[in-house]
Amino acid sequence: MNKQYADDSLALHTDLYQINMAETYWEDGIHNRKAVFEVFFRKLPFGNGYALFAGLERIIQYLNRFRFTDSDLEYLRDELGYQEDYLNYLRQLKFTGNVRSVVEGELVFANEPILRIEAPLAEAQLVETALLNIVNYQTLVATKASRIKQVTGEQRAMEFGTRRAHEMDAAVWGTRAAFIGGFEATSNVRAAKIFGIPAAGTHAHALVQTYRDEYTAFHKYARRHKDCVFLVDTYDTLKSGVPIAIKVAKELGDRINFKGIRLDSGDLAYLSKEARKMLDEAGFTETQIIASNDLDEHTIMHLKSQGARIDAWGIGTKLITAYDQPALGAVYKLVAIEDENGQMVDTIKISGNPEKVTTPGLKKVYRIINIQNNKSEGDYIAMENEAPQDESRLKMFHPVHTFVSKFVTSFRAKELHHDIFVDGKAVYETPSLSAIQQYAKENLEVLWDEYKRGMNPEEYPVDLSQKCWDNKMKNIQDVQSKIGSA
Amino acid sequence: MNKQYADDSLALHTDLYQINMAETYWEDGIHNRKAVFEVFFRKLPFGNGYALFAGLERIIQYLNRFRFTDSDLEYLRDELGYQEDYLNYLRQLKFTGNVRSVVEGELVFANEPILRIEAPLAEAQLVETALLNIVNYQTLVATKASRIKQVTGEQRAMEFGTRRAHEMDAAVWGTRAAFIGGFEATSNVRAAKIFGIPAAGTHAHALVQTYRDEYTAFHKYARRHKDCVFLVDTYDTLKSGVPIAIKVAKELGDRINFKGIRLDSGDLAYLSKEARKMLDEAGFTETQIIASNDLDEHTIMHLKSQGARIDAWGIGTKLITAYDQPALGAVYKLVAIEDENGQMVDTIKISGNPEKVTTPGLKKVYRIINIQNNKSEGDYIAMENEAPQDESRLKMFHPVHTFVSKFVTSFRAKELHHDIFVDGKAVYETPSLSAIQQYAKENLEVLWDEYKRGMNPEEYPVDLSQKCWDNKMKNIQDVQSKIGSA
Repeated sequence: MNKQYADDSLALHTDLYQINMAETYWEDGIHNRKAVFEVFFRKLPFGNGYALFAGLERIIQYLNRFRFTDSDLEYLRDELGYQEDYLNYLRQLKFTGNVRSVVEGELVFANEPILRIEAPLAEAQLVETALLNIVNYQTLVATKASRIKQVTGEQRAMEFGTRRAHEMDAAVWGTRAAFIGGFEATSNVRAAKIFGIPAAGTHAHALVQTYRDEYTAFHKYARRHKDCVFLVDTYDTLKSGVPIAIKVAKELGDRINFKGIRLDSGDLAYLSKEARKMLDEAGFTETQIIASNDLDEHTIMHLKSQGARIDAWGIGTKLITAYDQPALGAVYKLVAIEDENGQMVDTIKISGNPEKVTTPGLKKVYRIINIQNNKSEGDYIAMENEAPQDESRLKMFHPVHTFVSKFVTSFRAKELHHDIFVDGKAVYETPSLSAIQQYAKENLEVLWDEYKRGMNPEEYPVDLSQKCWDNKMKNIQDVQSKIGSA
Repeated sequence: MNKQYADDSLALHTDLYQINMAETYWEDGIHNRKAVFEVFFRKLPFGNGYALFAGLERIIQYLNRFRFTDSDLEYLRDELGYQEDYLNYLRQLKFTGNVRSVVEGELVFANEPILRIEAPLAEAQLVETALLNIVNYQTLVATKASRIKQVTGEQRAMEFGTRRAHEMDAAVWGTRAAFIGGFEATSNVRAAKIFGIPAAGTHAHALVQTYRDEYTAFHKYARRHKDCVFLVDTYDTLKSGVPIAIKVAKELGDRINFKGIRLDSGDLAYLSKEARKMLDEAGFTETQIIASNDLDEHTIMHLKSQGARIDAWGIGTKLITAYDQPALGAVYKLVAIEDENGQMVDTIKISGNPEKVTTPGLKKVYRIINIQNNKSEGDYIAMENEAPQDESRLKMFHPVHTFVSKFVTSFRAKELHHDIFVDGKAVYETPSLSAIQQYAKENLEVLWDEYKRGMNPEEYPVDLSQKCWDNKMKNIQDVQSKIGSA
């Protein structure tokens, strides 16, 4: 291929098979039948007890702008051989469907619908790939950030990962997800600018190398930066970096705020304790120690358990790449479709792996919150027309081991899905990022501690209503009898 | 922050400390001193014996467009408190330096300079973060792709990972990197369009669910798609999917090319062997079996060792996220800087970890290729003014265990760095992506097999010249004597 096509829309940011399937639907005249797809994942990441949803803002942006441009259509015709009639259909296409979704900062669990897309079949199909691309990454990073914040507690956690992020979008949207998960600041200035996240950072080793010695470098740096954090490990932390930082701070006295020192290598537990002593002895008891260098929730917990004197944390690689599990497996499955008579019929996907069998039909998800203690009893997936909030006594049973059940009374059923798009129009206004972060914190309050443990948490119940379970069984039997008779 | 700032440039796609350091240099009047930074990584990813460089095209694009926009400067002033004088300096800034780099598709190894940026100090500092962001990810994925291609050999490998990629840039640039690593196609239509990569894909489970049964779905699909690949695992691969695919293909006869079936779940070894028998017995001996489902080089090798009858591979998550090691640790280190007299002086960073000590000075990298057998003897890092190609007998010794040495005669020294930017002007024209892929293949030919083994490969020699080693030792001693006397 010689021609250079413009990268002028995200409509082609999809898998080729979506365009093929949409073509078949269009050619068969069923492209406008109403279809319902659900987004869900089958397993929580990092062995965590919950996930934190993020990505909705980007999804709204994407769906609002969804259009095939001239260069997209030209490419599809000239290089991939699609025919003009189908391209004319694509040319006028925009997203006209409904989206219901949990909102950002909501806790989500395995096997429950996070988003529900109700749209003309072809439209719903074409947007699948981008939606998953967005949800999978941002939810992963928000969850990882939340895990890290469980360990740093009130101490400041800063996102430092741009250089190791998977290209530029990941750095920027990953930073936003980290903020939703509770992070307080970022080093990425572009993310800080776009999303209004506090920007953090001081200087790097290169500054010291440029001035050859720390004494000169710190003095020069302090001239324009009154709130000083000095990086002390360019040559030797305890012999050179910390003593010189103290010396410079003493010389400059009130002309600067000696806010902190940063440790970026070596044994952070030992070095922080020694540095703390040196700072305290010099009278800098308020000067903080900031640590970075391949940190994650495990390292931080171990450093703390050894009494490390670290006040704030810069977290890069392990957060922004979700290092220990760099993919969430959210999928997008058809659960119902309009038939030739205009009736919605349920659909199912059977699999050799029982846990991969989908749950058919239009559903709603509720968080069942005990009104005595304001703690959640579990999530409850019901059919569209059920009203669990009107029941006085709710039977919740395990979706696999169905004999495990409990009755809940005195509860409120919080519906998790909100209207995001109605007939193609965005109706949901994203709250401020701080409000989303706050919402995530409040949601975590509703969860018992046993579900928040970073290792081997209890399994949070996500249960089907009796109707929902019966409907699933019926659909499985229908398919099995069809295959049996094939 | 209430105000919404435009995301209208990548100049702020950097860590805040770069902007702080540049400010100190500018305020001190040394921002235009010539500085030399090198990009290198310390450890090969995935336990592989080599890495494959990618990212240069994106770097050229980034540096060419590097400008602070009005909204960038407004943000820096209004939200971060930078002063007008410094902002005026940033306002007129563009990249005016030199970049020398290995080209895409080149094999690179630990501890050798991949890129060398020679530029006014402040400029070189400001671009660090974005350069690392680009190089780390793209090189990682190109290397992972190359590992996978070592196992698939002549069989077609297709990139299918967009839904699990870390946001959109990763999907697109990761696909390009995968192509450099030897992949033949992608499902991402946008990447295919922008870079001219062959697009691949047929239909998903949703098509079968939409039509309720495979018979109808395959028939409908075939009406517009003559080259048919049918996905056969929506309900039951061997009882339903494969027999129905065969039935439909027989009915349609010459009206379609029954190119293949795709398996996306279950035991791919067993299913592919059984499906092959069924296809062969039906006379479809040319119909291919395509497999997908969490594949990587290890799974593919095991499937092949069990005699799986798979002809082509769709690889998603494990490639596009570099799942088993989702970050490459390339760093950007100052190796020389102009002093107050206009002389270039070497700089070094010492560390408690000996392997983190940098190698000072302006250097060049050569691949020493034995002209008898056209195989590489190792890479050779020499000082700028050395000319190893003019020597008849080259001493190569281990950079850590210096007593391990060899003499090489009858060699050619291939210089790995090319001029990319000269005085801020891009002088390098990126070859076609196919040419880059071909170049990578040819480079692999120069490597002995022991370095290409996917597990426990031999360590490829990356040696310092005597002068380079002596210079490093001298710089270490200088710093140590300075700390000792502090």
